[in-house]
Amino acid sequence: MTKVDVGKKVLSANEAYAQKNSQLLAQQGKPCFNLISSPGSGKTTILVRTITDLAGALRLGVIEGDIQTDIDAQRIRAAHAPAVQINTEGACHLSATQVHRGLTELPLDQLDIVLIENVGNLVCPSAFELGEDGKIVVLSVAEGDDKPAKYPAIFAKSKVLLVNKIDLLQGGLVDFDLEHVRSEARRLNPGIEIFPVSARTGAGMQNWYDWLVAQARRSG
Amino acid sequence: MTKVDVGKKVLSANEAYAQKNSQLLAQQGKPCFNLISSPGSGKTTILVRTITDLAGALRLGVIEGDIQTDIDAQRIRAAHAPAVQINTEGACHLSATQVHRGLTELPLDQLDIVLIENVGNLVCPSAFELGEDGKIVVLSVAEGDDKPAKYPAIFAKSKVLLVNKIDLLQGGLVDFDLEHVRSEARRLNPGIEIFPVSARTGAGMQNWYDWLVAQARRSG
Repeated sequence: MTKVDVGKKVLSANEAYAQKNSQLLAQQGKPCFNLISSPGSGKTTILVRTITDLAGALRLGVIEGDIQTDIDAQRIRAAHAPAVQINTEGACHLSATQVHRGLTELPLDQLDIVLIENVGNLVCPSAFELGEDGKIVVLSVAEGDDKPAKYPAIFAKSKVLLVNKIDLLQGGLVDFDLEHVRSEARRLNPGIEIFPVSARTGAGMQNWYDWLVAQARRSG
Repeated sequence: MTKVDVGKKVLSANEAYAQKNSQLLAQQGKPCFNLISSPGSGKTTILVRTITDLAGALRLGVIEGDIQTDIDAQRIRAAHAPAVQINTEGACHLSATQVHRGLTELPLDQLDIVLIENVGNLVCPSAFELGEDGKIVVLSVAEGDDKPAKYPAIFAKSKVLLVNKIDLLQGGLVDFDLEHVRSEARRLNPGIEIFPVSARTGAGMQNWYDWLVAQARRSG
């Protein structure tokens, strides 16, 4: 996001569509969450494992945001969930307008929850409301434990922090102090839920599933 | 970077300062490179190890770009190199204006090379010229081997690709096909130099040092 005078106007146009999305989701009673992280933190792998492990229990639909390619939507569809791929063609975040198109293309009446995977970017997507019920920030342990301090906005705004790739903590392969991240994230956002997980091994994923299922029950 | 009509005007104001920076660096005969990557790919760790290992052989100065905190500049100074910290206060990339301030604060006459560590963001910084001689993209193996395809702009524009954290490839801890990344990066950019390294263990770093030293010799 560049800091320019038109920022306010752009945000307002975006907010109008965000409101539309929020109303559409509320009418249909579908919770919707916006996953934000650096590139390569494992958002898609988390989604694929979640879809697979919750098959028969929770019906997930996904809006995939990427600058280019439909690699991620293909991975979601291979896990037997509906996915709409949005290519931003250079833009560094999803807009509410793009998500609106995604919502109209998903079979909402056959879903329990909609998950939006934003463009891999820990900065810009946090400034653009999409009409979601909450943001979920994903941080891979390989990225280091200084990220809440260095990129505070998204940690301050998220309902959930998924600390992913915790399998890499074994054997001291990466320098990452989970307790430091926990206290830094809570300093920015006392109410944030924190789930350490490995989408690769499945460790810790059940806590995340329980949270997701509770969100669907609250709306259902 | 939002896609808005003023984009062209913003880029032009930035380009004027980029040109100033480029002239200043050329007058002083100092090569300057702009390191760009996702958050947590290991840019600062690469810089710290490079400064330490090349102490006495190559004098490096660093301009550190971060949204908040001076954690990175402190790490550079602890390695006994001069560092100027720029806080972008929310902006997702360094501007040429900010880098101009950094260049005037660095003791240029006592340096052989200036390295700019941009804000951790694989998207936006690639669109803003800073007056540098070239961009260097850093990709950690933990981020996955699909990143050149998904974030092509920075791979297409960089002189060098540092594939970092190759120590994590041992034991199949991360799924990453180095040959796939090599061919994807070369498809986007046939002339790109590719150095697989581990800033943690030091593996492969000598190739990167040789390249850096050659850049200083060409300018000296």
